[in-house]
Amino acid sequence: MGADKQETVPALDQLIGEIHFDAAGLVPAIAQDETTGEILMVAWMNEAAIRETLASGRVCYWSRSRGRLWRKGERSGQTQELRDFLLDCDGDTVLLKVAQTGVACHTGRRSCFFRAWRRGRLETIAEVVVDPDELYGNEG
Amino acid sequence: MGADKQETVPALDQLIGEIHFDAAGLVPAIAQDETTGEILMVAWMNEAAIRETLASGRVCYWSRSRGRLWRKGERSGQTQELRDFLLDCDGDTVLLKVAQTGVACHTGRRSCFFRAWRRGRLETIAEVVVDPDELYGNEG
Repeated sequence: MGADKQETVPALDQLIGEIHFDAAGLVPAIAQDETTGEILMVAWMNEAAIRETLASGRVCYWSRSRGRLWRKGERSGQTQELRDFLLDCDGDTVLLKVAQTGVACHTGRRSCFFRAWRRGRLETIAEVVVDPDELYGNEG
Repeated sequence: MGADKQETVPALDQLIGEIHFDAAGLVPAIAQDETTGEILMVAWMNEAAIRETLASGRVCYWSRSRGRLWRKGERSGQTQELRDFLLDCDGDTVLLKVAQTGVACHTGRRSCFFRAWRRGRLETIAEVVVDPDELYGNEG
């Protein structure tokens, strides 16, 4: 029952087979801070992004706007180390528990979820902690 | 600057305007346990589901398989009370902080994310806590 290398390759194929990619070959991925439980961001992964993430231990998404693999932090330095990789019951969403370096959001906030509907209006509930100019534009 | 009723209606329209629904008029919504931070499930909302959720304080999704509003727990009794409603930076994902009654997953587990890729295989990491037969099939 050892997880030797002979077993690892087919098992990874089996994992990929459990994931229900959409018509564009993508699946949404939630990045959650492994320590605080804070939800940092949601982005997209294709099969190649998932394979690279699992192989490297660093989170790699698929950038829909740029049409290429997006190694999170490749320009901004705000990388995500993968701590756990989870799949939901119907296999159409991935949950990444990560150790986030710096901030996840391209606005310079820790989390992309910094707007809350409270008291009948959309309030900004988190502060910018890194100047977005330091993050090289929209890289995130 | 008071949030009186005259302001509330246009503000809600403004919130809806900030949400980027996909071509099918849907946006993914993450349900997170407000206390533990555990991610319970991901489902979809349309504008009507969002308006109902904010008005009632109980989470209502859009069921893609059934093509109708899905008042979470309407058959299973496993309702979600809304505690906070957040939107991400680009407005294409909603985060619902909820008080979950019972279990979120149709398999009878607390969370839909009960499978983890560990040691080269997909492991089941959460136990069934409610017999799915008691939840009336696939209602969740």
